[in-house]
Amino acid sequence: MVDFGVVKKLASVLRDGDWKVTVTSLVTGAKRLTSDRQGQTLINIEPGDTRKRYFSLAFDIGTTGVRGQLLDLNRGRVLAEGVDYNGQISYGEDIITRIAYCQRPGGLKKLQQAIVATINGMIGKLLAEAKVKVEEVAHMVVAGNTTMVHLFLRLEPKYIRLAPYTPTVSTAPLVRANSVGIELAEHVYVYTLPSVASYVGADIVSGVVGSGVYQRKKLTLYMDIGTNGEIVIGNSEWMVAASCSAGPAFEGGGVRHGMIATDGAIEGFDINPSNFEPAISTMGDTKPKGICGSGLINIVAGLLEAGVISQNGKFNIDLPTKRVRRGSDGYEYVLSWGGETQIGKDIVITEVDIDNLIRAKAAMYAGCQTLVKGVGISCADLEQVIIAGAFGSHIDVEKSITIGLFPDIPRDRFIFIGNGSLLGARLTSFSTDIVDDGGRVAKMITNLELSENVDFMNNYVAALFLPHTNASEFPSAKKRLDKLPK
Amino acid sequence: MVDFGVVKKLASVLRDGDWKVTVTSLVTGAKRLTSDRQGQTLINIEPGDTRKRYFSLAFDIGTTGVRGQLLDLNRGRVLAEGVDYNGQISYGEDIITRIAYCQRPGGLKKLQQAIVATINGMIGKLLAEAKVKVEEVAHMVVAGNTTMVHLFLRLEPKYIRLAPYTPTVSTAPLVRANSVGIELAEHVYVYTLPSVASYVGADIVSGVVGSGVYQRKKLTLYMDIGTNGEIVIGNSEWMVAASCSAGPAFEGGGVRHGMIATDGAIEGFDINPSNFEPAISTMGDTKPKGICGSGLINIVAGLLEAGVISQNGKFNIDLPTKRVRRGSDGYEYVLSWGGETQIGKDIVITEVDIDNLIRAKAAMYAGCQTLVKGVGISCADLEQVIIAGAFGSHIDVEKSITIGLFPDIPRDRFIFIGNGSLLGARLTSFSTDIVDDGGRVAKMITNLELSENVDFMNNYVAALFLPHTNASEFPSAKKRLDKLPK
Repeated sequence: MVDFGVVKKLASVLRDGDWKVTVTSLVTGAKRLTSDRQGQTLINIEPGDTRKRYFSLAFDIGTTGVRGQLLDLNRGRVLAEGVDYNGQISYGEDIITRIAYCQRPGGLKKLQQAIVATINGMIGKLLAEAKVKVEEVAHMVVAGNTTMVHLFLRLEPKYIRLAPYTPTVSTAPLVRANSVGIELAEHVYVYTLPSVASYVGADIVSGVVGSGVYQRKKLTLYMDIGTNGEIVIGNSEWMVAASCSAGPAFEGGGVRHGMIATDGAIEGFDINPSNFEPAISTMGDTKPKGICGSGLINIVAGLLEAGVISQNGKFNIDLPTKRVRRGSDGYEYVLSWGGETQIGKDIVITEVDIDNLIRAKAAMYAGCQTLVKGVGISCADLEQVIIAGAFGSHIDVEKSITIGLFPDIPRDRFIFIGNGSLLGARLTSFSTDIVDDGGRVAKMITNLELSENVDFMNNYVAALFLPHTNASEFPSAKKRLDKLPK
Repeated sequence: MVDFGVVKKLASVLRDGDWKVTVTSLVTGAKRLTSDRQGQTLINIEPGDTRKRYFSLAFDIGTTGVRGQLLDLNRGRVLAEGVDYNGQISYGEDIITRIAYCQRPGGLKKLQQAIVATINGMIGKLLAEAKVKVEEVAHMVVAGNTTMVHLFLRLEPKYIRLAPYTPTVSTAPLVRANSVGIELAEHVYVYTLPSVASYVGADIVSGVVGSGVYQRKKLTLYMDIGTNGEIVIGNSEWMVAASCSAGPAFEGGGVRHGMIATDGAIEGFDINPSNFEPAISTMGDTKPKGICGSGLINIVAGLLEAGVISQNGKFNIDLPTKRVRRGSDGYEYVLSWGGETQIGKDIVITEVDIDNLIRAKAAMYAGCQTLVKGVGISCADLEQVIIAGAFGSHIDVEKSITIGLFPDIPRDRFIFIGNGSLLGARLTSFSTDIVDDGGRVAKMITNLELSENVDFMNNYVAALFLPHTNASEFPSAKKRLDKLPK
């Protein structure tokens, strides 16, 4: 097939290029390429030989943060990458609020325009940084949770949150970038990875594809830590997935000085157990601006191990330090004094922040427990734990176990892949084989609905403690904490 | 495949219709339907059962006039039809002028918007007349000459008039009506019939399909009389076609009081040989407004047979009648006095008008002669002559032979089909089999290029006489004219 856009410029391009031209064809899967050449669609024609300039874009649309990469398709390389807040945040921090907002007149349109504006802004920067012209981009691949995909494509999201939680689409059709407002050339199509269910989205399918869980026999736990935490257990033969709404704490949301993982975010944290003074490090080694998700984990674990907070997340107010003080949200700990920060005021962590983190990690861990039990295994059986999430690059396994986010199993089984969703989108952009794999993975994953699962609720309540009300689940953390003066 | 528009409304339509819905699928040919169900694309979904309301539009885009019909696809009937001037006329009366106009900045865009505005206006009237809602139209079929198709789709027409006369496309891809500016529902696609060459367009393919020339063994001459006259000779086994630029006279162009064949056009003409008074009849039996193509033929034949004009088209100025007089363009004959007309002034036919008709009929007849000789037959061998054209419904064979437009062969071989291009578009709209036939016919027709053909030029010059310089070609006309007093 030939796109109308190609036909339109055919006559002039053929002559401009003196009958030598480069055509771009759209191939949506490896199977089509080999068995059915008719499945290809010619989407662009350019005069002369332009094969050396062949680029694409991969995006992960998160509820809080959006991450994008500009890719060189000839060399299989990332040329530039960027991160920005999802412009929809001003309409609501979580998915439920945003779906509700869509029920207002013009609501869906506004949210769609917000995310498109975010992406267009990022595309402009990526292209400028790598000196790639907009017309040299051949396609775009997008992953994201089911709601984000619906909002991006302006599809009715209402039924995502109504039982039986049926999204409008699992496999979104190819759409022209222009038709949804993305400012790329007319011929560019957007491929969206498929999802499994309303709360097991294209981001998790993309992560499974990107991390290769479906290619190996190893029994794997895949955790995608973010506002909408998602968990997969399985291997090349079977996979079960569940979603547990962790809330935005891992992406800096609902945290007084929270921010996404970018320059200025406090990530590293150590505390002097004698005077309770902190030693912090930031991403980009700049003055601190806020706290990212991984920083939050490190800080809470550090405060806990130093006895600054107790296992229920409350401050010990009898310590000889000015850093613990009463603030507007109850007690807080000053991480950095105003004079040393980019924002000109003290950066603190509050009891409310800690409480939000506890609830977030409790949801993730409870989901994990429920799924492990659901498939009839125990955490010790897991041969591999893949941690994905864009909440920071230097997550500390030990500290994550200390707060009860990860199961307390041998440390060498943990693998960190960063943003799994973006990784999968990137690999999909590079290979038509992987496009097929995405569809196969989406069909292969069985969804376990946790929202009305009694086990999950019980596990969640039990996990609202540092590391857990059942200390025997975290023997190594218990050992460390037992050393503290009572 | 499923169109994105269907996906967009899927969730709400399914629920609005309580899970009972009607879908519209796009099938572009009969072969696909039977052998490859994958070839279908779902283009629309509506709540409930809407099968009873299923309509389409067929259009013939002529250089001068545009004709359209609203069709009931359930009953195979025409519900309403209309005709209007092609809005591009103000940019030039013929194809060459319009192609030249496209070379100005924004020229192609303007011409495209002009024809789209004409069609949108007509669609509005057709829908209103038949009380059909715009969203009940399922598809649209368009035929027209190659240039008109290019301008409608905003395709570069430049190369149509540059040797070797290669159009940008012969088979235009399906396009969304909205994408070219046609005001129909988002899901509506426009199917354009294929063309053979730059000057043997989709209109002629449509006419051959509509009249069934390709289905019968009878040796047939198909003449499409219009601004761009086209001629086909052949049968179910072979077909040869040629185009001869007749000029706009048959559609009322270049004629002082010329008009397209619609209400108020003088069509019938008789003349009293003793006092030279006319008896005219008009389309719609209204007061006269102008002269349509068939009227022009009848008038010129009548004036010739009454001796008011001579065989070279000049007025006999010695007759005892006030109707022949000197006007601004030389001599003229008054068909209707101002008091009896809709326009409040005399309707006349001038020597310039007659000259334009002579050149138009000479081009048609010369094309016909050249083609007949080219395939090694004579006019007497023609078993059937199909006359198409929108220049009037009551064309008189006898009079057309008198002026030398049709070959002088037995009258019972002539068949009149009116607008063949619109007929073919209508049948195509009704049946996917006929969609396939259109493609087959376009491939089957061999194009004979007349523009640099010496035989054609000689035949043309010889035909610039009433009926012809070689009187032996028109024995019956000669017999009648010989009776006139010399």
